[in-house]
Amino acid sequence: MANLKLYNYFRSSASYRVRIALNIKGLPFDYIPVHLVKNGGEQNQAAYRSLNPMMEVPTLVDGDFHLAQSMAIFFYLDDLHPQPRLFPSNPQRKARVIQICESINAGIQPLQNLKVLQELEKRYGADQAAKDSWVQLWVGRGFAGVEAMIADTAGTFALGGEVTAADCCIIPQVVTARRFNVDLSPYPTIRRVFENCTSLPAFQKADPTKQIDSQ
Amino acid sequence: MANLKLYNYFRSSASYRVRIALNIKGLPFDYIPVHLVKNGGEQNQAAYRSLNPMMEVPTLVDGDFHLAQSMAIFFYLDDLHPQPRLFPSNPQRKARVIQICESINAGIQPLQNLKVLQELEKRYGADQAAKDSWVQLWVGRGFAGVEAMIADTAGTFALGGEVTAADCCIIPQVVTARRFNVDLSPYPTIRRVFENCTSLPAFQKADPTKQIDSQ
Repeated sequence: MANLKLYNYFRSSASYRVRIALNIKGLPFDYIPVHLVKNGGEQNQAAYRSLNPMMEVPTLVDGDFHLAQSMAIFFYLDDLHPQPRLFPSNPQRKARVIQICESINAGIQPLQNLKVLQELEKRYGADQAAKDSWVQLWVGRGFAGVEAMIADTAGTFALGGEVTAADCCIIPQVVTARRFNVDLSPYPTIRRVFENCTSLPAFQKADPTKQIDSQ
Repeated sequence: MANLKLYNYFRSSASYRVRIALNIKGLPFDYIPVHLVKNGGEQNQAAYRSLNPMMEVPTLVDGDFHLAQSMAIFFYLDDLHPQPRLFPSNPQRKARVIQICESINAGIQPLQNLKVLQELEKRYGADQAAKDSWVQLWVGRGFAGVEAMIADTAGTFALGGEVTAADCCIIPQVVTARRFNVDLSPYPTIRRVFENCTSLPAFQKADPTKQIDSQ
């Protein structure tokens, strides 16, 4: 099997999720940077668009199969490399993990990503303070929901004592929240899970500041 | 087993997705309306928040288990009621279906939903024309991506000849797009899949105009 290739961007939280997942499973991958700002956004170039029609990162390439969307990549990795599992096999626990993931993947991240902030600037002249305030609104509301969900389920990690896909989503969202000065004091369970996860090498190695395109 | 209960709103596209999925599987459910506008948004009330900490619709209740997020509900239904499947069992085909779903669930819908439009009005005085333009931007970009994806995979439905979760996501997004006067002429595959799906009773019965809270 050819090495997996991951087209991604150090700061993209969806990319960061997938780096964590690959590390958890011990799968080596070639890191192919796609710079979201330089050159008008490298994700918008024709060659990349043929891999990822939504012009987003990340994209995983496995031989002649290419796949976008972090959640699709999680399931694909779990199907082909089942141990350790990102999603529990029990249907209710699996569903709860997906719910937590989607509360971030569909509930928070899309509202505060780079292209939305760029559009607010273009349409309404949003400056950095206005962008921070926009991000703080959605991350704050979303984290209030995630905190309530995992207050019931968390042990060392978001769902009990094993790392799951939920942790792969929570940790990058916390890192983004800090970058936009979101007050994390109302979310003690999220903060505890963050500390526990980031003590693990799989999470440390995936950190944005450690990637080859972070300079 | 007690009947499934679905807390939902006729016009919510995530609710509409789950209604389709339940109908495809032939699962009866109690329809419990949650009005997203009246009474300051019934999804924000304390009793509902305890079922759905993100204060969103839909929420599925199955006995003492309650579950939010349409994607989590799809997987839960597939695990408990496997036929017909919403996700194919082949890992690559399954991953492609998830990718299409997420391109809508995380890539389009969150950017154009009611609470974002309300916030644009509050912060920037966005009027109806400005809101339409915002929706058209994100639906247009997203549908260009989805069209490119399914141009390769579609038969009668988004992935070949069987209805999948991808169709459950595409059809409600088309209905919303029409409501905001999005030009659908550039997306012939999406339009074909829409016509084929909406000829089926499972999709017809889930239509927003047919729900008890649509008056």
